[in-house]
Amino acid sequence: MSRRLLMHVGPVTIDNDVLSAGLVNNAGFASPEFVEAMKYALNGFLYTVKSGNYMPFILPGSGTLAMESMTSFLKPNDSVLIISNGVFGDRWKNIFSRYNLNIDYLKAPPGRAVSLNEIENIKKHYRMAVMTHVETSTGVRFDVKSAAGILRNISDIIVADGVASISGENMEADKWDVDVVFTASQKALGAPPGAALLAISPEAVSELNDVSLSGFYNNLYAWKDIMTSILDNKSAYYTTPPVHIVFSLARAFELIKKEGIDERIKRHYIVAESIRSGIDGLGLEIVAGDDYKSNTVTAVMIDNPSEFISGLYSKNIEIASGVVPELKDRYVRIGHMGWLNINDAAATVSAMERVLHEMKYNISPGQGLKRMQEFLFNNNY
Amino acid sequence: MSRRLLMHVGPVTIDNDVLSAGLVNNAGFASPEFVEAMKYALNGFLYTVKSGNYMPFILPGSGTLAMESMTSFLKPNDSVLIISNGVFGDRWKNIFSRYNLNIDYLKAPPGRAVSLNEIENIKKHYRMAVMTHVETSTGVRFDVKSAAGILRNISDIIVADGVASISGENMEADKWDVDVVFTASQKALGAPPGAALLAISPEAVSELNDVSLSGFYNNLYAWKDIMTSILDNKSAYYTTPPVHIVFSLARAFELIKKEGIDERIKRHYIVAESIRSGIDGLGLEIVAGDDYKSNTVTAVMIDNPSEFISGLYSKNIEIASGVVPELKDRYVRIGHMGWLNINDAAATVSAMERVLHEMKYNISPGQGLKRMQEFLFNNNY
Amino acid sequence: MSRRLLMHVGPVTIDNDVLSAGLVNNAGFASPEFVEAMKYALNGFLYTVKSGNYMPFILPGSGTLAMESMTSFLKPNDSVLIISNGVFGDRWKNIFSRYNLNIDYLKAPPGRAVSLNEIENIKKHYRMAVMTHVETSTGVRFDVKSAAGILRNISDIIVADGVASISGENMEADKWDVDVVFTASQKALGAPPGAALLAISPEAVSELNDVSLSGFYNNLYAWKDIMTSILDNKSAYYTTPPVHIVFSLARAFELIKKEGIDERIKRHYIVAESIRSGIDGLGLEIVAGDDYKSNTVTAVMIDNPSEFISGLYSKNIEIASGVVPELKDRYVRIGHMGWLNINDAAATVSAMERVLHEMKYNISPGQGLKRMQEFLFNNNY
Amino acid sequence: MSRRLLMHVGPVTIDNDVLSAGLVNNAGFASPEFVEAMKYALNGFLYTVKSGNYMPFILPGSGTLAMESMTSFLKPNDSVLIISNGVFGDRWKNIFSRYNLNIDYLKAPPGRAVSLNEIENIKKHYRMAVMTHVETSTGVRFDVKSAAGILRNISDIIVADGVASISGENMEADKWDVDVVFTASQKALGAPPGAALLAISPEAVSELNDVSLSGFYNNLYAWKDIMTSILDNKSAYYTTPPVHIVFSLARAFELIKKEGIDERIKRHYIVAESIRSGIDGLGLEIVAGDDYKSNTVTAVMIDNPSEFISGLYSKNIEIASGVVPELKDRYVRIGHMGWLNINDAAATVSAMERVLHEMKYNISPGQGLKRMQEFLFNNNY
Repeated sequence: MSRRLLMHVGPVTIDNDVLSAGLVNNAGFASPEFVEAMKYALNGFLYTVKSGNYMPFILPGSGTLAMESMTSFLKPNDSVLIISNGVFGDRWKNIFSRYNLNIDYLKAPPGRAVSLNEIENIKKHYRMAVMTHVETSTGVRFDVKSAAGILRNISDIIVADGVASISGENMEADKWDVDVVFTASQKALGAPPGAALLAISPEAVSELNDVSLSGFYNNLYAWKDIMTSILDNKSAYYTTPPVHIVFSLARAFELIKKEGIDERIKRHYIVAESIRSGIDGLGLEIVAGDDYKSNTVTAVMIDNPSEFISGLYSKNIEIASGVVPELKDRYVRIGHMGWLNINDAAATVSAMERVLHEMKYNISPGQGLKRMQEFLFNNNY
Repeated sequence: MSRRLLMHVGPVTIDNDVLSAGLVNNAGFASPEFVEAMKYALNGFLYTVKSGNYMPFILPGSGTLAMESMTSFLKPNDSVLIISNGVFGDRWKNIFSRYNLNIDYLKAPPGRAVSLNEIENIKKHYRMAVMTHVETSTGVRFDVKSAAGILRNISDIIVADGVASISGENMEADKWDVDVVFTASQKALGAPPGAALLAISPEAVSELNDVSLSGFYNNLYAWKDIMTSILDNKSAYYTTPPVHIVFSLARAFELIKKEGIDERIKRHYIVAESIRSGIDGLGLEIVAGDDYKSNTVTAVMIDNPSEFISGLYSKNIEIASGVVPELKDRYVRIGHMGWLNINDAAATVSAMERVLHEMKYNISPGQGLKRMQEFLFNNNY
Repeated sequence: MSRRLLMHVGPVTIDNDVLSAGLVNNAGFASPEFVEAMKYALNGFLYTVKSGNYMPFILPGSGTLAMESMTSFLKPNDSVLIISNGVFGDRWKNIFSRYNLNIDYLKAPPGRAVSLNEIENIKKHYRMAVMTHVETSTGVRFDVKSAAGILRNISDIIVADGVASISGENMEADKWDVDVVFTASQKALGAPPGAALLAISPEAVSELNDVSLSGFYNNLYAWKDIMTSILDNKSAYYTTPPVHIVFSLARAFELIKKEGIDERIKRHYIVAESIRSGIDGLGLEIVAGDDYKSNTVTAVMIDNPSEFISGLYSKNIEIASGVVPELKDRYVRIGHMGWLNINDAAATVSAMERVLHEMKYNISPGQGLKRMQEFLFNNNY
Repeated sequence: MSRRLLMHVGPVTIDNDVLSAGLVNNAGFASPEFVEAMKYALNGFLYTVKSGNYMPFILPGSGTLAMESMTSFLKPNDSVLIISNGVFGDRWKNIFSRYNLNIDYLKAPPGRAVSLNEIENIKKHYRMAVMTHVETSTGVRFDVKSAAGILRNISDIIVADGVASISGENMEADKWDVDVVFTASQKALGAPPGAALLAISPEAVSELNDVSLSGFYNNLYAWKDIMTSILDNKSAYYTTPPVHIVFSLARAFELIKKEGIDERIKRHYIVAESIRSGIDGLGLEIVAGDDYKSNTVTAVMIDNPSEFISGLYSKNIEIASGVVPELKDRYVRIGHMGWLNINDAAATVSAMERVLHEMKYNISPGQGLKRMQEFLFNNNY
């Protein structure tokens, strides 16, 4: 493919080293090189979520598989609290609705997150509470740390979907007392899609057993033995792992450690703020309210999103369309995850300016870029 | 990794062109290049199973995910018939046992398949009957065509697991009247693991609906819309597809079409027979009985399998250990799927001879290779 | 390597498809796939220089090898005219000085080209006249077309070094009556370094013979038979060709044909003008005078070039240092060749602004980017 | 390309890790990553020829470029002794004939090497004596160590062409008192073609100066400064180096160190002897006499070489045709260099048997393989 810049919410632009780490034509799931890479990736994920004593899992599938694997902790008629800030918060409801569960559901309007007050007022006890760290549909970031503090009183198991956050936002599962966090390989980790990564607290792991609502493929109780074996340098088989994605992930975690997780999060912040400064300069409205802006996804209101998207595409930048029903056809999403840097932000803002100009917006040349540069000048980036 | 020859049951040795087709660092699930590759792969799979009017699916996961997705056709208390010839036949039972289903189960001893007579004697009617084309645990091939003819009378939906067979064995889903056939990317298709491919008859597709035992991730009713959209050249999202594996699959199907599916199956046969001739020459017993030998997997009885496996490994050949409980620690498995040719068979038989010699078997030099060459000489291969 | 943007004068940023086309682990110089790729690349080069009746050559080496191969047309004491606009023009002198030749040498000051008047005034006759289309050391473009028209009267063989121009600048060797044009794989063609490509007029080819000043490796008389054979679909050996670079080149020419050579040249112009508009906006002086600016290289005066270069490097952009002795330590060079687009220009100008700010230049945020955007707005790019 | 086995004399089968090390789309010749890789490769080459105090060079071109660069040590009318055992020995004559030199030339018949006695009888003194370690045209190995001992008395500079030997045959340049040894990237080092590697004794390096017969491109006096700079971790430019080949070479040397040079040479010996045992078993004659067989190339007499070659090709094995005029159309060459192992030998001998059978030779199945296995059984390989 041509040198198009992928500013999408996932898959995202992949580092070439990460990509070519998967160029292995003779690795089986029992090959020592795979076992080594898998172990490295498992531990790399714990580093990334700052939770060395958690148990790491890598499953063969997307982030949604990780979500559904939470059924491994649930039994018929269990109560579950869903805190939804958008489409991917709602996905919890869509998933759990296929099971025999009692669901309570809090929902925020687009661009905002459920208020902590609302959670504090809950009197009921739940087997599980689930939330979304960054809502991919709007770029809204939720205060997982504070929410977990409150939820600890009303829920046995606390789950945070970190699909659109982990390695781009700070996540300290252990310290924040979140039992389960997870992401997918193709988001801020910047590898090809195909693997879901979870970190689970020792307490939650100890509660896994054979009797649960989970199916076969997503049964964490069964997968636990596989991960234990790998961490002990021994191959094991449940269903075939995504061998090549794991090689790429191992390389990604090597680069993440080299960069440092905090440096990586800071880089995500700088790129996000660069793009948002440009957007402000261009006079466009950002969907997420001021307290909710994330390092990884920015949703932008625009009158004719498909024209905007195809305009950017013709300028070699691919962004994502909107998916929130309430804002249907009124916004777009820009992903800024993985291996991006300020160069990509500059390219994106420059292209946005020119597309808006072509769309007859009243834009003066450099209007958005000036604001982006101001942000960068002021912070010496 | 070094030039070790992977003679495994999956993942298998991958063609370099297939592998490097996945070297794309800027493809999203909505990128036109992905939509094109996905459509190509979907149609390529139909070509491979000779069923142009079936509906193709590619799911993000392993072959087991395809198995479990059969719950999309099932409702609580449905009756299911499982025809098991080994570990992967039993996997059906393990999967369906997690659901509220009435299960009947026929089982063959290792090395043999369930007899057609036994099936003919069944009087009951089933919502679904499932079988395994080639049993990966023993290399036993089942006569899917004949079985389907019988099962048609007693089952609404007929399913054949072609994970270890498709593109290495003849499979004519449409003509044989099998409703669902599936495989996984890392078997005879010779791509990296991460995608499950299904072809489903129009009749079965029309029975998919929102009320089923399936979960969310493996719900074929939901996936149907995605596949329909892709086949219509439009991107669509349910959960993130394995983008890079699909690029590799598209290239694999391009090569499969170039080779011709029947030529490809014949090549699998020749490699299989070459290896088996060598094994016969070496005086080892093959697990599969004469009527059950497959083109893709050969299981071999051996006294000290781990010594045999590590001996071959030291000679740069990786094979698989045995998994059938009844034969535990008494056999090994050789996979011969994908892109292998006679050169690989010769290397394997040569190495087996030398390992047996080292293990103090009474082997004369060339004893197995001679028989392999006789087979090849006699057939002008 | 990290996602650093290579804005160098060669090697340049390589398209991933071009790069991965070289991922072939089993191609020999006699393999049919290589012969096919080599033939495709040879013809692709003729397309690129719009000279279908010329004879193409690909030699195993850099552009300098192509320069020195001009000795294949020369005999002891031949007269040669060198038109030099900088370091790479002077390279002709350095090369020819190692041979028994009579050299006349015209030289322009940095940032300018030798005047056509000066050439018109020459009364002498030469065996060969050589010039440089784009002088890599300063980015100065020479009017090869007009010069060739004048030189035709005083030189048997007219040679234009297109190393830093071909596929980024218009080059019509045949129409302009230039006998020999050449480039190297790692410049505007955007492949890895390792191949020199030449196109030679039928008249000049007919003058090649075994008696010349050339050595063995660079003897075009010997290489002629190899190219003839390849063009006739037959493998041939003189010394080992750069097999993998040729696979990449074949893919590059495929992309060049798809883009169209004139579109490609226009894209180079737009990127060059974008960067130069930004530089103007930043108040920096461009080395090349107004009539001499090229599409491929821009040299910029700067007080502390090494600080500027390392500043950009820390912002993930790599440019080249200056090499002209007269301007030593007073300028830098930006390469904009191959597969770049406006996104790269925006990234570069943004980074330059920030580096100058850090270097205490009096720069207002967006000052350079504004001018770049004006250029783009005005031309609807 | 398909999984064809390349048993050629160069380029040879490339290890996938070595190949993918060159997948770098943003490395310039001044990039720190390149400088690091180049330095690593330079030192890796010294390890390979066991001469840590020699000066290493990597030039952008094939092995022939290294040969011609010997003119850097020569002045007009110097005397040179050429010891030729075949086509590539004769290449020295073809090269030096283009220069003003006094050439003495010793030549052995095909399959044999020049006798040491003949060299001992020489009374003349030479500026340079050149020989070929393994003659690629016939697979004949020359006793470089003994020859160097004799030549030291009659030649200032002793040169051994190790193109078809280094890393496959023992070469101790320093201990054997050979001043210059060289190879090319695509031979036993197993990387893509495009780089020539030389190691030169300190004494010889000290004699390099600006006045020599060399041209510009191959002038070692100029290249010396570049290599010195790189070894001092500083980038430097003379002409563009083969950046991507150097990345591959660096990876190759990493693997070579990991394997150990003596283990690597032994592996070459085992593969060579395996193939030759098979050839003996098949009743074919090997061109090289018993004292001259090399670890890297085996030439085999055959009546209809083109039929034999295309027969093997149809069985997915590519070998090389013969090139010695005296044996024209009467033999073929099998290369066994780089990353091959016994598996490749078994595949080759199996295929040869079958091709000979098809060519109506009187071959019994397994006849050659038996002898190969006997060799391997007897030595516990």
